[in-house]
Parts: sequence; C-alpha cells; structure tokens
Amino acid sequence: MTPRERVRDAYARIALGERPEAWITLRAEQEVLAEAAALDEDLPLAGLLLAVKDNIDVAGLPTTAGHPGYAYHPARSAPAVQRLVDAGAIVLGKTNLDQFATGLVGTRSPYGPVRHARDPEKVSGGSSSGSAVVVALGIADLALGTDTAGSGRVPAAFHGIVGIKPTRGLVPTEGVVPACRSFDCVTVFARDLVSAQRAMTIMSDPVWPVDAPLAAPPRPVVAVPARDQLTGMSEEWLDAFGRAAKTLEAAGAVLRPVRLEPFLEAAKLLYNGGFVAERYAAVGAFLDEHPDGADPTVAGIISAARDIPAHVLVADTERLERLRAEAMAEWGDADALLLPTAPIHPTIAEVAADPVGVNAAVGTYTNFCNLFGLAAVAVPAGPLGVQIITRGYADAVATGVAALLTGGPAPAPAARGLRLLVVGAHLTGQPLNHQLTSAGGRLIGRARTAPDYRLHALPTQPPKPGLVRVTEGGAAVEGEVWELPPAALGPFLAALPAPMTLGQVRLADGTAVTGFLCEAAATGNAPDITAHGGWLSYLSSLESR
Amino acid sequence: MTPRERVRDAYARIALGERPEAWITLRAEQEVLAEAAALDEDLPLAGLLLAVKDNIDVAGLPTTAGHPGYAYHPARSAPAVQRLVDAGAIVLGKTNLDQFATGLVGTRSPYGPVRHARDPEKVSGGSSSGSAVVVALGIADLALGTDTAGSGRVPAAFHGIVGIKPTRGLVPTEGVVPACRSFDCVTVFARDLVSAQRAMTIMSDPVWPVDAPLAAPPRPVVAVPARDQLTGMSEEWLDAFGRAAKTLEAAGAVLRPVRLEPFLEAAKLLYNGGFVAERYAAVGAFLDEHPDGADPTVAGIISAARDIPAHVLVADTERLERLRAEAMAEWGDADALLLPTAPIHPTIAEVAADPVGVNAAVGTYTNFCNLFGLAAVAVPAGPLGVQIITRGYADAVATGVAALLTGGPAPAPAARGLRLLVVGAHLTGQPLNHQLTSAGGRLIGRARTAPDYRLHALPTQPPKPGLVRVTEGGAAVEGEVWELPPAALGPFLAALPAPMTLGQVRLADGTAVTGFLCEAAATGNAPDITAHGGWLSYLSSLESR
Repeated sequence: MTPRERVRDAYARIALGERPEAWITLRAEQEVLAEAAALDEDLPLAGLLLAVKDNIDVAGLPTTAGHPGYAYHPARSAPAVQRLVDAGAIVLGKTNLDQFATGLVGTRSPYGPVRHARDPEKVSGGSSSGSAVVVALGIADLALGTDTAGSGRVPAAFHGIVGIKPTRGLVPTEGVVPACRSFDCVTVFARDLVSAQRAMTIMSDPVWPVDAPLAAPPRPVVAVPARDQLTGMSEEWLDAFGRAAKTLEAAGAVLRPVRLEPFLEAAKLLYNGGFVAERYAAVGAFLDEHPDGADPTVAGIISAARDIPAHVLVADTERLERLRAEAMAEWGDADALLLPTAPIHPTIAEVAADPVGVNAAVGTYTNFCNLFGLAAVAVPAGPLGVQIITRGYADAVATGVAALLTGGPAPAPAARGLRLLVVGAHLTGQPLNHQLTSAGGRLIGRARTAPDYRLHALPTQPPKPGLVRVTEGGAAVEGEVWELPPAALGPFLAALPAPMTLGQVRLADGTAVTGFLCEAAATGNAPDITAHGGWLSYLSSLESR
Repeated sequence: MTPRERVRDAYARIALGERPEAWITLRAEQEVLAEAAALDEDLPLAGLLLAVKDNIDVAGLPTTAGHPGYAYHPARSAPAVQRLVDAGAIVLGKTNLDQFATGLVGTRSPYGPVRHARDPEKVSGGSSSGSAVVVALGIADLALGTDTAGSGRVPAAFHGIVGIKPTRGLVPTEGVVPACRSFDCVTVFARDLVSAQRAMTIMSDPVWPVDAPLAAPPRPVVAVPARDQLTGMSEEWLDAFGRAAKTLEAAGAVLRPVRLEPFLEAAKLLYNGGFVAERYAAVGAFLDEHPDGADPTVAGIISAARDIPAHVLVADTERLERLRAEAMAEWGDADALLLPTAPIHPTIAEVAADPVGVNAAVGTYTNFCNLFGLAAVAVPAGPLGVQIITRGYADAVATGVAALLTGGPAPAPAARGLRLLVVGAHLTGQPLNHQLTSAGGRLIGRARTAPDYRLHALPTQPPKPGLVRVTEGGAAVEGEVWELPPAALGPFLAALPAPMTLGQVRLADGTAVTGFLCEAAATGNAPDITAHGGWLSYLSSLESR
C-alpha cells in the first residue's frame, strides 16, 4: 500500500468504530492524506503512521494529559515527535491514557476506560493505553507512550506487541507533561522489534557514555529469577515464563539465578514515600482547583502528596541509591535480567473493585526500572509478555537479547554517532552525498534551522551553498540530519576544505546539532539565496529558468 | 628532595606552628615516612603530598565533617582518595572546613576559624579552608576539597592557587559527607594547573559522553560580562578582571559580552528555597540532637529547612531547569565564561559581624555553577582570582582556556579512554608493556582486585599469568590500571590471543574495571600462583630459587 492508501485504510477502520475510546484527538483525514501525498519516500520512516500519547505535545493538536480542563495548545511538537516526523512518520492523532500518566490499567480517564484490543472485558493496560491499542489493532505502525512505573511496557505485554523503554535521559522529555519527573521516559510501541528500534534510534539524543556497549554479546549472561521468586502469577504464566527462559538459553544465552528482593523493595518507593511529591508539584495545584474532570483515583493519589516534607523526599532518594547498590551487586556480571512484564492481566471489573491494589500488583515487575535508571524492552512471550532489562545505556544489549527471544533479526544498535546537519552538496542525491554513505553515515531525518541563518551560493566545484549565522535578518534553511560513526569523523574533518567549517547549528525545534557552516569571509561575493528556503529549491529554480 | 625529605620538611613546617587550625587530624610522621620509603617511583603522582578535607573518608582516620560529635571511622577511603593513593600520592592528614561544608568563609568551625595563609586578619575562604591553606603554604602539593556553592574555588582565589571543580558526576562522591547532595563535587587544589589537572584525571570516572570536547579550540570564544554587570567589587578588582580578559584576548581568545541575570537569579535557589532540605536530610536530625559542637550559623541554616514541603523542592528543581535554559540561551555558542571567583575578600571580623550576608556576597559568582551542571577552573589573576566556566563535560575546554590565561603549558585533557587492569606481561617493565605505550596508553595507578580471583602461570611465550574469578577460595591480586584511547581499543582487542579475554574485574575498592582475564579452560594444568599475591612477586620468587 502507498502511504495514502495506508492512511485511508486507517481512517476506514477507525470509522468502523474499533475502540474509539483509544483516541482523544484525531486529525482530519484530508489533512493527513495531503501530508502523505507530499512525503519524501527516501526518509527512513517514510509513510509509517504514528499515534502519540496525549501527554506529549504535537503542534496543532491540544495536549490534555487525560484531563479536559488541563488542555493547552502547544506551539511546537515535542522533540521526540518532531524527530519522527522529520524522518517521515505521519501523525494520526493523540491517544487516551490514564490521567496524568498515573496508572498501569488504562481505565483512569474521563475520556473512557480503554478496553483491550481483542478482549473488551479486560483492561488495555496503561498508562499508554490508547497508543498500545491502536498499534495492536494495526491502525498505527508506531505509537509513542511514556513510562514511569511501567506505562510503556505493561500495555505492550497485554497486547503482544513490542515496547521499548530507553534509559532515561536518552529521549528528551521536553514537551511531555511530567508525571514523576525524575523518572519519566518517552517510549515507543510497534508490532515488531526492528520497527520499534528504528524509531527509538531516531528519537534518541547522542548522549551515550563512551563505554556504553554497542550490542549484546553472542552468549549473553541473563539473570532469571527462580519460579518461587515470582509471586502472584498463575501456573500457566509461570510455565510460559519458564519457556521464555528456555528459549533464550536455546538461542545461546547463559542463564543465572537472581534474587529479586532488593529490586522489589525499591519498587515500593515510587508510590509510597517522597517521590509522589513530584506528581503533586506537576499537577497538584491544578487538581486541587479543578475537581471536575479529575479521575478520583488519580486525584486521591496526587493530592495526598501535598504535605510530604522535602527532607523525606531527599532521604528516599538516598535510600533508593543504597537499594540500587544492593540490587546491582545481586545483578553482578549479568548482561540482562529476564522478568515477566506484569504478573496478572485484570478485567475492567477487577480494577474497578480495587483500583489502587490491582494497579500496584500489575506494576510489581516494572516499577523499579526507572528508579534504578535501567533500560528495558517488553516483548511478547506466549500468553504473557516478558521484559529484557539491562543496565542504563546498555539499551543495545536489551534489544539484542530481545531479538534472541523473538527469533527475528537483531535490530541495528541505537544511534550513537555524531549527528551532522547537511544543507548542500551532501544532501541525498547531491554530488558529495557518497562521502556520508561511504563513511557509514545514515540519514536520520529532515530538519530546518532556527530562523537565524543566511544561505549563499558559493563559486566552488561542485557548487555548494554556504550557511552563515546572522544576528538579524536570518531565516530558516532546509537540510538533512545524518549520523556518522564517531571513528569516521576524524578523517572527515581532516578532509574538509576551506571555507567550509563544522560547528553547532541551531534547529527550529530549539535543539542544536553539528553542521556545515561557512566562513563569512567567503560569502561576500556569493549570491544570497536564502529566499529559496534551501539548496534544493534554489537548484530547482535554476533548472526552471 | 626525595619523598622522605619532602615529608620531613612538611612536618617540620607544621611543627613551627604555621596555621595549625588548618588541620583536624594529622597522621603520625613515622607512619608517613615509612610509606614514603616504600613508594614505587614509577607511579604518576609518586611522592606528592596530599591533604584531604575532613568531609572525605580516609581509611584509618576519623571523618568529622567539622563537628567533633559527628566523627566516625570509615572502613575504606573514598574512591577519590584511593585513586590518588594508588597513583603514588601520600596522605598527610585531614583538613579543617566550614562545618558540614556549609559556608564559603572558613570561619564556621568548632576546630577554629581558619585564617588566610598570608594575611591572618582575612578569612581563608571555605568551605575547603584547611585544604587551600596547606597547599598555599607549600606543605601539601595537592589537597582535596568539595564544592557545592563554590567551596573548591573561593579559597583557591583567596590564596592565588588553582582549584579544579569538575562537572558533577565525574568524580565519585562515595565516602563524602553530603552537603547538598544533588550538587556536591570533589575538587582538587594545587599550586599549578598541570598538577591539579593530573590529579583530576586520575580521580575521574570514564563517564564522558561521546560528544564531550577533548580540548579547547585554538581561538576559544569566551563570554565576558561588561564592567557594569559586576556588582559589589572594588575598582581595583574590576580593573584586574578587565586585565584578565585582555590577557585572554591577547592569547587568542575571542571575547563576547554576556548578561549575567539568569545566572545570578538561579544562584539564589541554592540557599533560598527547597534545596536546603538536602542539607537537612543529610545532617538535620543529627544537629537537632547534638546542639553541642554545632556552629550556630550552620545549625541555623540547616534546621530552618525541616518543614519545607517536598513539592516546593520539586518546583524549585523545575524552576532551575527553566533558568538554566534561559542562561544557556544567553551563553549561546561561547566556549567558556570568564567570571571573578569572588567579588570581595572579607576579614574575619567582617564575617563575624554578618555571617550570612557576607557569606552570600562571597558566593555571588560561584553559586550557580553546580546548579547548572557546569565545570569550572579557578586560577589566580592579579589581586583577585577568576573562574573559567564551561558547559558540563567540557572540563578539558576549561583547563585549556585557563592555560591561555596563566600562560603555562596546556594540561593533558582529562581521562576519557578505557581503563584497563593489567596483571602480567603488560605491567610496567614487562615484555608486552610496549603494546600499551605504543597505543597511547598511560599508567593511572596500581590496584588490587577484590578477593575473588586466582592467578595461574600459563605456559605461553612470553610467560603470562591467567586471572580467573572464582566463587570461593579467591584472593586479591596486584595489578596496574592503564588508560587507552578509545580508538586504540578495537585493534588491541582484535589482536588479543586466546586464552586471554577482556572483561570486568572487580577491584578491592568496590569499583569494577575492564581487565585481562583468562579462559578457565586454559588454567587446568597451569600452576596456581595466587599465594604470591601478583605476577611480579611470583617472578621474584623464581629468581631467588
């Protein structure tokens, strides 16, 4: 199917009434079709349909965070969204969620409890409920969620899809309504691991420490809890977990036992202690003033945090560090930890009968991850889902081990090279583009500079534009962001001819990236072509003369 | 002078009564002399005399944090201390400080106000008061401080010595009594930049992001506030600051104006708001229960933080991030920011008359640095000291620009390669050591493994030992830690012959490092030489047969 056909198909299925509660805001079909028609098919995510959890900003659509009275209209998209759009993804709309991303069930929303995609008696899982459902239904190819306690993994497990929860800090949380700000991550859902990893690569900042592993070892050591360490699970799920471990072993993993106590003890800190004050700081005053539209369970949790003293929050932070040291000693030299994603999959009625208790049980095996700064990938495994958890910044190990389990191809490791903005002869299809591809570079997406630049046509061979930052009278200029392996950069820089330079270029989304600039000394007699908006438009204008 | 002569000289000067209040605990001279006599002169800091601020643990000495009743006896040294000792530094003792590192003056201590090294009417500056004084007097070559509000820079400025305050997170704060835990850094004082940088390199973890700059550019852009932006300074100091800027310009820097408002507004958050609760969480309950021995100013500041609500601390954290974004927009593309370290150098009497007000004025230009996660180097500049401040993880840029100002040699950039533990043929003086040196490696220090290993003499040519971790019956094994440039590692690994492997080795100090290990399959018939404690001792035993 072409991108336009994919869009038509998605809207037709939505029109049939498949889980309408999954959406809070849907874009107009004509607008999305127009975007699909104008798409550059060279982009790495060209034509993939994207749903965005409604606590993440998309320019042009309201952000509600699941509370109608909280709605605001963001001026720009969150960087996580913008990077996917720049890479060719097409936003369909904003999805329902547990209000203020506080919950793991998907029922805590005045926009309606989100039912499971196949079994409407059961919960969808949350808080990224709508995002998981529209991916599971095949309406969207990719969906963004967020994950503090497990919101990017639990609904993936309930639906048999993939959810990648990166190390926190890798994907910017700008433009995301905070839940518990120290621990919030942007996540992605997809039906397969490779698609999810591709999106995660594009969303991530290049902030990897130099010793972060690039891939899983061929025979990874995987810590697996013994059956009696897993509480609250049915015999059927315990059997399925055992089979997942055996599958990993058969695929080359070396299994090792692990005691879960320090992990599970830390997990309790997320809701029982000082950290809930972060939820109060984010939206507590708003909830106190707007009781209408509030989910009573969410409001009850958050309002109770008003009077926690600050020194208790600090003491809990220290306690968490001690528990982390204890847990990591137990972790030892393992490359990854295999755990169920959730121990149970409750019905909507079961949640209604005990909203806090059932929710807490669902989060048993997910809650500690962000507290400890770990990375995780949730993948299907028989009737239950499992998580591959790794140390922070070992995200590539998590996806690599996950690929052993799912049996699919191992996804390319996450982005870690230098991002480079090109605006001229290095663009796709232009004469020097081969320098990027032969150095192992890959296209990340299109981008526009901040409106602070002028572009000049330089009298070089091959013809090149020169980008110069100006203090006034600047404009935005179109380009592409590529990624180069760090080792390729030295030779690339050494071969760079004057007047070209490399420096930081500010982008329209407020971030900065290394990019080609030009010495101002070289632009004096070079025609100013800024009005064309970019090099390709300028070249087209020459052809049409 | 030999190390022993240096030790004798230091103790002779201390015996003469030079600023006795600088010390809280001094080691016995005979013990230190014995250590100097046993020193391995190949080590990079061999024989340098080290003083340690008394809020940092040194095994065998009490840690008081400036409060006699708080004293405890740590079982092990802080990693920052242990790394310097492993590299050949000799600890003289523990130095006086503003109690619980809360102050910038050096007078807030029941062990006596620390007078300036040359002008006893004036304050030494704090909180790392004793450490700066003993370096300024020439008694110690290196001294450790800590820096939250400016404690590793202000006393350097008052004494015309160098103080390096790294990006927080680079030097472990384990074994350091927390002041305001989110913002505490371990710092180093020395009389010259190269010595200070060498110590900082050895203390730092290899946690640099991949895009951290390796050095200052040849013509760094330095943001410098206009004269009317600097408040509370004498005409003489304003002139000196202007001369420092001119010196930088003459040395190649490109100067640029900068507005200080967002920086100075954030600075107020350190003591006026939620963050003081971190000080209460650290020692508030102790101070409430132990009024004797408390400095009244320190106790007053900390006890007042008991009732701050947690959501205020969280809101201040968010406010800080907004101010940081504003300040960094003002910072723009500058490589560094030049500021006075302190605007005034008060007398002890002036501080006594207004303990909180004068202290706050002293911290005007230092308080924001750790709040914003920046790096800084304090260097002498005429009658006042200045700071070179850079973005986080641009520490190498800060020392590089500081070298332009001081006119000395540019120090080697901070550690950023892979740390590698060697235990056999790659040790200094052994047949394969050239592989490390020719790849650009450098010796960081000696180390011992955790007591979990066995060492075997392998029948290889050249002879090598094989290190194997065991679950019981292990012992500690001696080795050296080297650092290799990241680019050297690929070829090094590719050339590694079986049965040697590289993996994580646990060290006696609780940390882990990549190191040479050996496949267990190869040690079956290889003699177990663990009892010798290390490869060199084993080789000696062969010679003496």
